[in-house]
Amino acid sequence: MTLHTVSELLSNNNILPEVEIKGWVRTFRANRFIALNDGSTINNIQCVVDFEKTDETILKRITTGAAIHIKGELVESQGKGQKVEIIVKSLVILGDSDPETYPIQPKKHSFEFLRENAHLRTRTNTFSAVMRLRSALSFAVHKYFNDHGFFYMHAPIITGSDAEGAGEMFRVSNLDAKNPPLTEQGAVDYSKDFFGKETNLTVSGQLEAETYAMSLGKVYTFGPTFRAENSNTSRHLAEFWMIEPEVAFMDLAGNMDLAEDFLKYVLKYVLTHNREDLDFLESRLLDEEKTKPQAERSEMSLIEKLDFVIDNNFKRVSYTEAIDILRNSTPNKKKKFKYIINEWGTDLQSEHERFLVEKHFKCPVILFDYPANIKAFYMRLNEDGKTVRAMDILFPGIGEMVGGSQREERLEVLKEKMAALDIDENELWWYLDLRKYGTAVHSGFGLGFERLVMFATGMTNIRDVIPFPRTPQNAEF
Amino acid sequence: MTLHTVSELLSNNNILPEVEIKGWVRTFRANRFIALNDGSTINNIQCVVDFEKTDETILKRITTGAAIHIKGELVESQGKGQKVEIIVKSLVILGDSDPETYPIQPKKHSFEFLRENAHLRTRTNTFSAVMRLRSALSFAVHKYFNDHGFFYMHAPIITGSDAEGAGEMFRVSNLDAKNPPLTEQGAVDYSKDFFGKETNLTVSGQLEAETYAMSLGKVYTFGPTFRAENSNTSRHLAEFWMIEPEVAFMDLAGNMDLAEDFLKYVLKYVLTHNREDLDFLESRLLDEEKTKPQAERSEMSLIEKLDFVIDNNFKRVSYTEAIDILRNSTPNKKKKFKYIINEWGTDLQSEHERFLVEKHFKCPVILFDYPANIKAFYMRLNEDGKTVRAMDILFPGIGEMVGGSQREERLEVLKEKMAALDIDENELWWYLDLRKYGTAVHSGFGLGFERLVMFATGMTNIRDVIPFPRTPQNAEF
Repeated sequence: MTLHTVSELLSNNNILPEVEIKGWVRTFRANRFIALNDGSTINNIQCVVDFEKTDETILKRITTGAAIHIKGELVESQGKGQKVEIIVKSLVILGDSDPETYPIQPKKHSFEFLRENAHLRTRTNTFSAVMRLRSALSFAVHKYFNDHGFFYMHAPIITGSDAEGAGEMFRVSNLDAKNPPLTEQGAVDYSKDFFGKETNLTVSGQLEAETYAMSLGKVYTFGPTFRAENSNTSRHLAEFWMIEPEVAFMDLAGNMDLAEDFLKYVLKYVLTHNREDLDFLESRLLDEEKTKPQAERSEMSLIEKLDFVIDNNFKRVSYTEAIDILRNSTPNKKKKFKYIINEWGTDLQSEHERFLVEKHFKCPVILFDYPANIKAFYMRLNEDGKTVRAMDILFPGIGEMVGGSQREERLEVLKEKMAALDIDENELWWYLDLRKYGTAVHSGFGLGFERLVMFATGMTNIRDVIPFPRTPQNAEF
Repeated sequence: MTLHTVSELLSNNNILPEVEIKGWVRTFRANRFIALNDGSTINNIQCVVDFEKTDETILKRITTGAAIHIKGELVESQGKGQKVEIIVKSLVILGDSDPETYPIQPKKHSFEFLRENAHLRTRTNTFSAVMRLRSALSFAVHKYFNDHGFFYMHAPIITGSDAEGAGEMFRVSNLDAKNPPLTEQGAVDYSKDFFGKETNLTVSGQLEAETYAMSLGKVYTFGPTFRAENSNTSRHLAEFWMIEPEVAFMDLAGNMDLAEDFLKYVLKYVLTHNREDLDFLESRLLDEEKTKPQAERSEMSLIEKLDFVIDNNFKRVSYTEAIDILRNSTPNKKKKFKYIINEWGTDLQSEHERFLVEKHFKCPVILFDYPANIKAFYMRLNEDGKTVRAMDILFPGIGEMVGGSQREERLEVLKEKMAALDIDENELWWYLDLRKYGTAVHSGFGLGFERLVMFATGMTNIRDVIPFPRTPQNAEF
């Protein structure tokens, strides 16, 4: 007899005379009803023990968290709340769980407490649902790109180039940490380091992905990226996963279409494949909302939010239009914004983005054609000479979900921009080669995967959507 | 009119009056026939230019590597070698490619040269085929696990634990590299570092994956791992991608079944979905073999090798049996091995593994039940007290493809082994928790993804199967 999973048995419509299952006890009540979970689904299967025929020492060991092995018969359930249940014929304790010390009690734990027990938190309904959704979203990402003719490329994690300037980087080294070798000039002599030069953890695989787009056509990366920024907020991680598609011959409009289609696809995917986990998270959120004052509760439930994104066109607004809207907005006039919008050219703060998305348009917004001087060097300069073909996609409650651009494909323009920013051409000789040999319009975007998981699960702290979060002062596990 | 891809047009059976395509010139001959490639397939589409009606300055710019935009009519081809071709009606040069300086000439380049031009090497047939296969294998990995009820988990890359001891690690830090803060005792004061402790790049996600297996049941990781080993060989990378499934309630036999089924599935996947790339790589290998003496040529072609693995059971042999075979083997008796096998307990060298796989069994081999003292601390001790439930899968031409084990699930046994190896319990408190609360038999394995890509593509240098290889003295791009 092969082992069944809870998920299989619960979706089974027939009774089965012989079933075998292994899992962990969630609860045991009335010395009779075991709620058993094996991680395959948010739902438990009820296993009914005949306590009169079961050794009392065994009954005492059926505690929350214990691993057990059950053989029995799958029957229609007499009780409420489940269609089927198992009548236990044989029960073996595989691994005990001392109810006095087991950290995951059958009660509500704070997310802070569970973060400190991140190795056990997927034994709770909330975190098992979140991580199953994270897995399903990952698969949806790969499936979308694969079905659309993209090739997955693994961008390097350790990089010798620090040209992108997307943020502070972590140094990777195996020089003696206390007494590094020094050059004659007294600087650390990285020529003696493992790679013969100074190396860091990547902040983005985009530049490398461009080399693949300019040969394979449509590519994407999906891998870890890093920021050594001392941001102790609910939206920042030092280590996070990023998705970066890059497409040859695609312009900024095509880039917007791709990002919108992609986001709708992956959200639709989990609505179809992970409905039970979403239902659970939706009701969790509703419970949480009840503790808030009416005015702070959200207008839509979790699933309504996902449906709303899938069913509606994202609003496309140029930076210039957005500045006009903001300048004339009530919070700007009444000086309710921390940063008052006076003139064209200022960078938007999160308060402005939230106003546009949550108050003004009330839907996902794609802002495009930003001022050149607030965006990265590789973005395509528009004919106006002052804006670049950049886009940011802003989501309600999340802020920036996607940042992308059409890339500067003209060698001379790119060189000028690099020179203006003091970026060494010798550092990026290979990137310039793409503009020397067979250059063409191309575009791409980056999407922080954890932001997507937050949106899809309704979790509000980014540390709760990645298995083992890395943040300032914390690299536990 | 939307842009077509070469792949779409070549698989089209109808003529089409209007097609539009963008790509890069591979060759241009007789002022008439452009072989155009856009990365979507190994094959080029022939575009026929009417040179009498085309401006001569344009004709001169149709050079290898140039990006061009073509509109025309898809017709049945008059020539040999292709079913369809495009009669060009309009041709625009998007990006020139100076034939005097373009590194990728229409001729054979050495792999060494192409490694130095890794940003352009996917513009060759060989590397585009290899990287499309790498992408397809990645997708097959995700699809296999997804279809079999596994959840993908992202193990952390930056780790504060150095307990696994799988190899030398890279330090991750943003302390001042030249003058790090020191403790009163004069050691580097990592409490002042970003994470408040010494951190490194992970060598394996296994221990973290175990925490997820013991809650979600079946999980896998697929992410980058690192070794700071100064191995300048064709089989070692400092940064490589690893696949690590981990399954609760699965023993070593189940682990072997899983690994064998998985390997067969992913190889079958590319045989079905990437036949043209494999055909190309097979003929490339055959050409290469012709330059070798008869005795060194392989008995099977690339595709025959893949079929062989798919069609045959892997041979399962205990370490003890393997030692007997090796001890009595001709190379051992004639002292042809560099390391002569005398007694039970010695670790096998690559020469021994190759003998077993390539000479003795002539098929993939699963060796299991190794001596405890040559294997990692977390492997399940057998009842004999001297062997552990470890397995290695050995492939012809590759050596170790998979290394796995059933994990030690007994708290006291695990603690004893850790104590014997001086592994601090406080470092792995969370790993021990898995044995304290609801422990159960569980198993998993690790597969170096690049080894798999090497086997599937017939490439013999691991630097040629990852986009931008990281090796000692090299972190270019």
